[in-house]
Amino acid sequence: MADAALFEFLHMEMVAELWAHHSDPGPGGQKMSLSVLEGMGFRVGQALGERLPQETLAFREELDVLKFLCKDLWVAVFQKQMDSLRTNHQGTYVLQDNSFPLLIRMASGPQYLEEAPKFLAFTCGLLRGTLSTLGIKSLVTASVASLPTCKFQVVIQKT
Amino acid sequence: MADAALFEFLHMEMVAELWAHHSDPGPGGQKMSLSVLEGMGFRVGQALGERLPQETLAFREELDVLKFLCKDLWVAVFQKQMDSLRTNHQGTYVLQDNSFPLLIRMASGPQYLEEAPKFLAFTCGLLRGTLSTLGIKSLVTASVASLPTCKFQVVIQKT
Repeated sequence: MADAALFEFLHMEMVAELWAHHSDPGPGGQKMSLSVLEGMGFRVGQALGERLPQETLAFREELDVLKFLCKDLWVAVFQKQMDSLRTNHQGTYVLQDNSFPLLIRMASGPQYLEEAPKFLAFTCGLLRGTLSTLGIKSLVTASVASLPTCKFQVVIQKT
Repeated sequence: MADAALFEFLHMEMVAELWAHHSDPGPGGQKMSLSVLEGMGFRVGQALGERLPQETLAFREELDVLKFLCKDLWVAVFQKQMDSLRTNHQGTYVLQDNSFPLLIRMASGPQYLEEAPKFLAFTCGLLRGTLSTLGIKSLVTASVASLPTCKFQVVIQKT
């Protein structure tokens, strides 16, 4: 019985609860639930970011911050590291997790692909919130080509 | 940055979200939000209970099960043990946590006491759900006399 399971179960309940009570069946209601989940993730990410040791906050390079997300943040939340990090060196980063924990419990048939977005919204927010605390404004989206592999795309917003 | 914080932040967001969108301002709406939280806790507790090692499931005595909650479950969720366990030996148990983690972040003035129930509902469900997986039907309520001390009362339902 580990904390990892606690977070996963709680996340699952949260998704189920938001879908049961918040959503109109139409795409408008679903969008609202996704944005609520993303917002919760954002605030949790911000709060986690504020607990970082001071030396971590002295990152100089954007790439260092992204590496920190892939390693330290991922381990703290999912007990594993991100599998790969790529960048176009122009402010766009693609973080790939080949076996994303919040998707693993879903059956892996292609017919479940359309259910994936609701299991990704919280984590998109989590990345965006942690980046925000580290002083970086970003847009984060996620995509799944085949379960349980997942790519998070982070686009840095230059101010 | 620890998993403990992740759970606490997520719990706080969940409470805030349910209060913001679910509740009518009246006592009816608040009761619904409390019961939604309790239900989420129940299902998370059930799921955690199912992950217990088989030998744990072979408890003979009711008191052993309660001790298990106070020790193993509490450590897994809150990284600390319950501070005391009392019973009337007739199926009623009082579990006391002198510094309940989900209440610690609240300010400790007596004026915040009335806010306490929404931070306890999930955990009442968690206890009831874990007990349910272990084959024990119960009613779980919580009370706070002075923050952040909290008492959970478990009343076993004989079948």
